[in-house]
Amino acid sequence: MSAKQTENYSSKMLTPGEYVQIDAVPWHPFPKEFSEGGIRWKLLHVSPELGAWTAIFDCPARSSFARHIHIGPGEYLLTKGKMEVRGGSEEGGATAHALSYGYEACNARHDKTYFPEASEFYMTFLGPLQFIQENGQPIAVISWQQAQELWLAQIGASK
Amino acid sequence: MSAKQTENYSSKMLTPGEYVQIDAVPWHPFPKEFSEGGIRWKLLHVSPELGAWTAIFDCPARSSFARHIHIGPGEYLLTKGKMEVRGGSEEGGATAHALSYGYEACNARHDKTYFPEASEFYMTFLGPLQFIQENGQPIAVISWQQAQELWLAQIGASK
Amino acid sequence: MSAKQTENYSSKMLTPGEYVQIDAVPWHPFPKEFSEGGIRWKLLHVSPELGAWTAIFDCPARSSFARHIHIGPGEYLLTKGKMEVRGGSEEGGATAHALSYGYEACNARHDKTYFPEASEFYMTFLGPLQFIQENGQPIAVISWQQAQELWLAQIGASK
Amino acid sequence: MSAKQTENYSSKMLTPGEYVQIDAVPWHPFPKEFSEGGIRWKLLHVSPELGAWTAIFDCPARSSFARHIHIGPGEYLLTKGKMEVRGGSEEGGATAHALSYGYEACNARHDKTYFPEASEFYMTFLGPLQFIQENGQPIAVISWQQAQELWLAQIGASK
Repeated sequence: MSAKQTENYSSKMLTPGEYVQIDAVPWHPFPKEFSEGGIRWKLLHVSPELGAWTAIFDCPARSSFARHIHIGPGEYLLTKGKMEVRGGSEEGGATAHALSYGYEACNARHDKTYFPEASEFYMTFLGPLQFIQENGQPIAVISWQQAQELWLAQIGASK
Repeated sequence: MSAKQTENYSSKMLTPGEYVQIDAVPWHPFPKEFSEGGIRWKLLHVSPELGAWTAIFDCPARSSFARHIHIGPGEYLLTKGKMEVRGGSEEGGATAHALSYGYEACNARHDKTYFPEASEFYMTFLGPLQFIQENGQPIAVISWQQAQELWLAQIGASK
Repeated sequence: MSAKQTENYSSKMLTPGEYVQIDAVPWHPFPKEFSEGGIRWKLLHVSPELGAWTAIFDCPARSSFARHIHIGPGEYLLTKGKMEVRGGSEEGGATAHALSYGYEACNARHDKTYFPEASEFYMTFLGPLQFIQENGQPIAVISWQQAQELWLAQIGASK
Repeated sequence: MSAKQTENYSSKMLTPGEYVQIDAVPWHPFPKEFSEGGIRWKLLHVSPELGAWTAIFDCPARSSFARHIHIGPGEYLLTKGKMEVRGGSEEGGATAHALSYGYEACNARHDKTYFPEASEFYMTFLGPLQFIQENGQPIAVISWQQAQELWLAQIGASK
C-alpha cells in the first residue's frame, strides 16, 4: 500500500574513472537527420546521473549540423579547421579558428553550424541537444541516453 | 573576419544569494497543457547557467501532471498529501506519502503523476521537463527559460 | 605498458529513482565539530557522480552551524522556525522565516548560521561544505562521500 | 526585521556564450605550491553559478602536479605527450598517451600526476581541486574563484 523505502540509498560507491585511447575507437557517421556533408563522431563518455556526455567530431569541408538548442551548457575545443556559428563572423555570428575554445550557454540556439574547411572538435555537453524546426518546435531531444543508444547500435553493427 | 575574443571572461562575479518568503508569493495556475485538475505553482528560482529551476506545487485532490520525461535529475520533498507515480503502488509504481523525499533520475519517464488527495510538494529540477506523447515524441521542453517566461507572464498579468 | 581502454564505457544504465519515507528514518546528531546546540540530521540522498547530496536538519532553539563555505550552490526550504544567516537581518545578514526558500550561491561564506527558535530545513547541496577557520584556512571538506560515511557509521551504530 | 524578498529573481537573462582564440592568450606559470617542473596554464572559462572551470596546461618533460582530490568530476583531452596517473601503468596506475580522453570521477584522489615527456592537455572541472597532505588533510581548495583570482593577478602582472 505504501511506497517502498529505497534500501541502502546511502551505501553508494565512488564512480569509476575512465580512459579512452581515441585512435583505437572507430569513427561512425553522425545521423543525417541532424547533420549534412558526412560528419562523423566518436562517443567518448556518458554521465547517466547528471545527463552529460562527451564526443569528438570529424567534419569534412562544407559539412554542417542542423538547427538545435543546447539544453544545458556545452564547451568545445576546436582542434583543427574552422567552424561558423550563427552565420559566421561575416553575417554577425562567430567564426572559430583552431586552436580555440568556445562556451555555448544553456538554451543557446544555433540555426546553422557550418565547417568551411575540414575540421575537428571535442565537446562536453551538460544536458541534451534539442534539434528543432525553424519555429522552435522540437524534432528530437538527444540526451546522453539517445547518444549512447545510437553509438551502441553503430559499434555493434560494425563488428 | 576572425572570431571575437570574449573580453574579461575571467572577471566574473560571485552569483548572488536569493531569499523568497513563500507566503508572500501568489499561486498561479500551472498550464492546462501539462496538468489537469487545478494544479497551481510558485516559481522559486532559476539558474540560467546550469539550466536548473525550483518550484513549489499545490495539487488539489484528483489532479495530475501530463506524461513527461525528466531531462536531468529532480528531487522532491512532499510536504502534504499523497502522490502516485507510474500508477501508484497498486499498479507497480510508487505512492509517496508526506513527509517524503524522492529522487527522480535523469531520463525518468512518468506517464502519469496523480494526487488522490490535496497535496503539496517542493521540487528542484536540474534540467528541463520534456512533455511527450505516448510514443515518446516531444510536445514541449520546459526548461528554466520557459518556466521563467510563463511565470513572468503570470505575475505581470496578476498586477 | 599502455593505458587500459575502459570497456563498455558506453553501456551505462539509467540511474534508479529513490524514495525515502522521512518519518521512518531516525535522526542522528550532526557532528559537534561543525555545529553547536544539538543539531540533528537525516541524510536523504547522495549523487556520487555529480557530487551532490540532500539532507534534512532539525535545529533546536539557539543551535548553530560553524563557519563554512558552500563549494557549489545549495538550496533550502525552511519548513519550521527561523534561521539567521550572516548575523541575521539585525546585523546586515538575513533572517529566514518558515515557509521560505533560499539559494546559497557557489562560494558563499557563512560565518554563522543561527537558529533563535526550534527550526527545521531541507537542503540540496551541489558540492561539498567546506568548514573553515576565520582566516579562510580549510578545516574539513564535507562532500557527499564524507556525509555518507558519517551517516553509515551513525545508522550502523544505532542498530 | 524580516528577511528581504529577492526582487526579480525570475527575470534572469540567458548566460552569454564565450569564445577564446587560444594562441592569443599567453601562458602563465601554474603555482609552485601545486606543481613542479615548470607547468604553465591558460584559464579558458569559469562558471560561477555551477562552480565549473576550464583550462589548458603545458607540461614540460618530468613535470608533475601535487597530490590532490577532484571535488567534482573532471574530463581531459590529452592533445600531446604522455601523462602518468597514480604511478602510471608500470605501478598499477594508468599512462595516458595522446590523443586520449579521461574521466576523473568526483572524489578521485591523485597522489601524483607525472609527465615523462612534454605534454599538453585541456581539462574541464566541475568543481574545485583540493590539494591535500598525504594524510588527506586539506592544504588548499582551488575552485573557479581561486583559479580566476590567480589568473587575473597573472595577466595583470604581465601587462
